[in-house]
Amino acid sequence: MIAEISMHRLVLIGVGLIGGSLALDLKRAARVEEVVGIDIDADNLTRALERRVIDCAYECINAESMADADMVLIATPVNTLPIICRQLAPFLTDRCIVTDVGSTKQLALQAFAAELPQHYERCVAAHPIAGSDRHGALAAQFGLFAAKKCIICAHEQQDKTALQAVEAMWQAVQAQIYHLDAARHDAIFAAVSHLPHMLAYAYVHQLAEAANADELLQFAGSGFRDFTRIAASHPQIWTDICLANRQVLAGLLEKQQQELAYLKQCLQDGDAQKLTAFFAKAQKIRESWQNEQIQATAGVPAGR
Amino acid sequence: MIAEISMHRLVLIGVGLIGGSLALDLKRAARVEEVVGIDIDADNLTRALERRVIDCAYECINAESMADADMVLIATPVNTLPIICRQLAPFLTDRCIVTDVGSTKQLALQAFAAELPQHYERCVAAHPIAGSDRHGALAAQFGLFAAKKCIICAHEQQDKTALQAVEAMWQAVQAQIYHLDAARHDAIFAAVSHLPHMLAYAYVHQLAEAANADELLQFAGSGFRDFTRIAASHPQIWTDICLANRQVLAGLLEKQQQELAYLKQCLQDGDAQKLTAFFAKAQKIRESWQNEQIQATAGVPAGR
Repeated sequence: MIAEISMHRLVLIGVGLIGGSLALDLKRAARVEEVVGIDIDADNLTRALERRVIDCAYECINAESMADADMVLIATPVNTLPIICRQLAPFLTDRCIVTDVGSTKQLALQAFAAELPQHYERCVAAHPIAGSDRHGALAAQFGLFAAKKCIICAHEQQDKTALQAVEAMWQAVQAQIYHLDAARHDAIFAAVSHLPHMLAYAYVHQLAEAANADELLQFAGSGFRDFTRIAASHPQIWTDICLANRQVLAGLLEKQQQELAYLKQCLQDGDAQKLTAFFAKAQKIRESWQNEQIQATAGVPAGR
Repeated sequence: MIAEISMHRLVLIGVGLIGGSLALDLKRAARVEEVVGIDIDADNLTRALERRVIDCAYECINAESMADADMVLIATPVNTLPIICRQLAPFLTDRCIVTDVGSTKQLALQAFAAELPQHYERCVAAHPIAGSDRHGALAAQFGLFAAKKCIICAHEQQDKTALQAVEAMWQAVQAQIYHLDAARHDAIFAAVSHLPHMLAYAYVHQLAEAANADELLQFAGSGFRDFTRIAASHPQIWTDICLANRQVLAGLLEKQQQELAYLKQCLQDGDAQKLTAFFAKAQKIRESWQNEQIQATAGVPAGR
């Protein structure tokens, strides 16, 4: 049975692409009466108010901004989670649920346990897979989460009601719920998200260092455009994510260096057979993935 | 002054995305009366005839298929160029122009000079920048080249009339003509096209090698989708391109290994400042590139 969610007041800490888009959909679906936005960027809050992403705005966490909160959703860069939890602690009522949307989940659970020990049962670590190179309240959009995955990493002391409420909130915006252990989540997303971000940055950085960078970029086409889209992502956000997951990522970078060493050797040997086999293995798996995506999202309007 | 092109018969060797799309646009603009398609894949020829990409089809180069050709456009994988030129030699009339569309231009000029020495003046090396992970006659589409760049690498013995005819042909399909020395062309495209293809293949290959590859791919999102799109490209075509340009590419792979080593060290040191500076340098240049693209293509209908 799927629980339905209906909140009086949602407090959104960090009014950006993820939090803002969630607020828009929840309000449209009449699942929340009021969204309170808290953000350190006053201009961003103004834009969020103008676009009706939020109903009222505060620049800090205090008794007034936190009053009557049913749910607090933290949607700020991952390394800010401990300090935000510390600031929240005095203002949480027993019934309030705390949840996040960060890309690294072990760190989130550590922050909840360390900074909100009294409230840990009602802290739910979640990660909706709907990133973008866009950010800020202006990036918020309706329908962002439709048919997208949302991973929830329940912990051993998890309160069931809190867990179900967070699940129901994401289901209300059409996300598909998956459950993963936090360590497994972090290992998976290191491979399919964090590593490609680092590699895209590394490639563009190499171009930027070239003496004729401007000339090179003049001739970049659609392959370059797509390959480097994620290199336009927010540097601070991705520094935090990469450092939060640094151990797994360092191992993956090591493996990628080995792949490049192999390719370089193939070029130096002029070995067409090995190169084709290598490319074909990648091409085949990429093509099956694409076909599965098309099947999985058949009938769903395009996101982004 | 821009010359206009009007051909009686264009012979297309290799009826795929590039050659097929060119034929569609030239026919629609009434710049060619008849397009002859030559391809070793009989099924592909059938599809090309059905879709009216070509007007008649042959499976080999001979007196009949080559009769009355004004222009021969070679649009096959780059390493087939020498053998195709050798086969063409007996059937070329003095006035016929030979041109190609390959991604490596030094190799094209070498093949023209070695295999068609009598005809070298009328051989024009060109490279339209409109690649895709799609291939074959079914991938052919109208408008593929609108507002796209087409690089022409004239050589020292180039006949001016032949050069102008090839320029006019690409201008007729709305491409923007650029002139580059062949060696410079190859160095530029190694950096902005061939290297990212190798890197995308290398990353997907690493995922494919993982014990839990299927689980990983299940959680791949839109960042993964765009970053790896070019890893779905044709393995044989890209083996040929990479080997044709192997010297420059090996050097670029070496530099990329150094970028990864630097990132790995940043992770191991937990150095947020260095990581952010690295990411920010890449992000800044990617963002300016995107803004310039938007300005440059303002008013042009979206491709692909």
